[in-house]
Amino acid sequence: METKEIYLESLITATPQEGRELAIKLARKSIAAIQPDSDIRKNLRSDYAQDTAQLIASSLVIATEFHTIAMANNYWK
Amino acid sequence: METKEIYLESLITATPQEGRELAIKLARKSIAAIQPDSDIRKNLRSDYAQDTAQLIASSLVIATEFHTIAMANNYWK
Amino acid sequence: METKEIYLESLITATPQEGRELAIKLARKSIAAIQPDSDIRKNLRSDYAQDTAQLIASSLVIATEFHTIAMANNYWK
Amino acid sequence: METKEIYLESLITATPQEGRELAIKLARKSIAAIQPDSDIRKNLRSDYAQDTAQLIASSLVIATEFHTIAMANNYWK
Amino acid sequence: METKEIYLESLITATPQEGRELAIKLARKSIAAIQPDSDIRKNLRSDYAQDTAQLIASSLVIATEFHTIAMANNYWK
Amino acid sequence: METKEIYLESLITATPQEGRELAIKLARKSIAAIQPDSDIRKNLRSDYAQDTAQLIASSLVIATEFHTIAMANNYWK
Repeated sequence: METKEIYLESLITATPQEGRELAIKLARKSIAAIQPDSDIRKNLRSDYAQDTAQLIASSLVIATEFHTIAMANNYWK
Repeated sequence: METKEIYLESLITATPQEGRELAIKLARKSIAAIQPDSDIRKNLRSDYAQDTAQLIASSLVIATEFHTIAMANNYWK
Repeated sequence: METKEIYLESLITATPQEGRELAIKLARKSIAAIQPDSDIRKNLRSDYAQDTAQLIASSLVIATEFHTIAMANNYWK
Repeated sequence: METKEIYLESLITATPQEGRELAIKLARKSIAAIQPDSDIRKNLRSDYAQDTAQLIASSLVIATEFHTIAMANNYWK
Repeated sequence: METKEIYLESLITATPQEGRELAIKLARKSIAAIQPDSDIRKNLRSDYAQDTAQLIASSLVIATEFHTIAMANNYWK
Repeated sequence: METKEIYLESLITATPQEGRELAIKLARKSIAAIQPDSDIRKNLRSDYAQDTAQLIASSLVIATEFHTIAMANNYWK
């Protein structure tokens, strides 16, 4: 069902900014794991990108993924 | 009520990617524990796979399960 | 209001699988604490078991309870 | 606005079961802090006690409060 | 856009009860940061204070803020 | 798709208050990553700033981001 693409080699990133980008990537890959059809995802994208409730919910997913990534990187200290 | 299938032998995985896959598996097994009828689940699947709000909510569950798995694996460092 | 039943003797479980089962039990006991009438709960059950949004929300509760249980068990390492 | 009642003397409890009860109490006190009128709360109670989505959301609050309490008690180990 | 008021001098509080009060304050200040108009906030308040779903969601915010505060205070042990 | 702006140089802040401001900034940047069109975001803003459910959801995102930032700063102790 899921594509066997390797999208997460490591949680370690060089900078906090790259940690944010990885968090966004992980959030997107979860959506793709549940809805593997990229055409359907593209159509759905216009829905949630203009719906503030869904934008806010997406940002909670990013915050949660980033928390894990920040811990893995010892907060880039 | 729940099937007595053992679906979680260990939280330890070889790679972060396998950690993501385990997170997705755990999220699915929770659904199955509450709705044990696989035919009903199959019917329901078409609902949420095209509903962005539910896709986003599912990705929050995956992020939460992954957080636990990542800690268990000391972030694969 | 709440029944004085002792349903949580310990967070320690022999296996990760038993940890999942405890997480599901805790999630259910929270519902029972708020809605103590088991007949009402039985009627309500058919509602959420066929509503994917609620199944997903339930799985977030299970993921959150499991996180606590996994930490208590040092991830069964 | 908030009543000056002291409802949280300590996060330490003798048993995990008492930890659950404290988690439920904290969740209820948060509601009371935002809606201090106990008559209104009593009326509202019949709403959410029969609405599974709200019962599930409440159980997420309990799980989150319990996580804090469990950590405070070093998981009662 | 945000007022430059300093509302968080420290996460350290003398008692757990004061920790709860700080958690409620932080939750409110987040609302004020997004909706800086206090008249609009006052009008909106009557909405959510009688809507159980929103009361429950607010209590999740308080639980999340409190978790951070409790950790900062080493659980007041 | 995402702008290549660097908006997160470090999770370390001088004060808890600055930590709150960083949490709010991160929450906003997540929205911008998903909806990069600033005109659309400006139009959407009036939606959620008057919708209490969305204000509360936003404050949960801020609480979650702040938790990570507070840990990174060892709670400014």
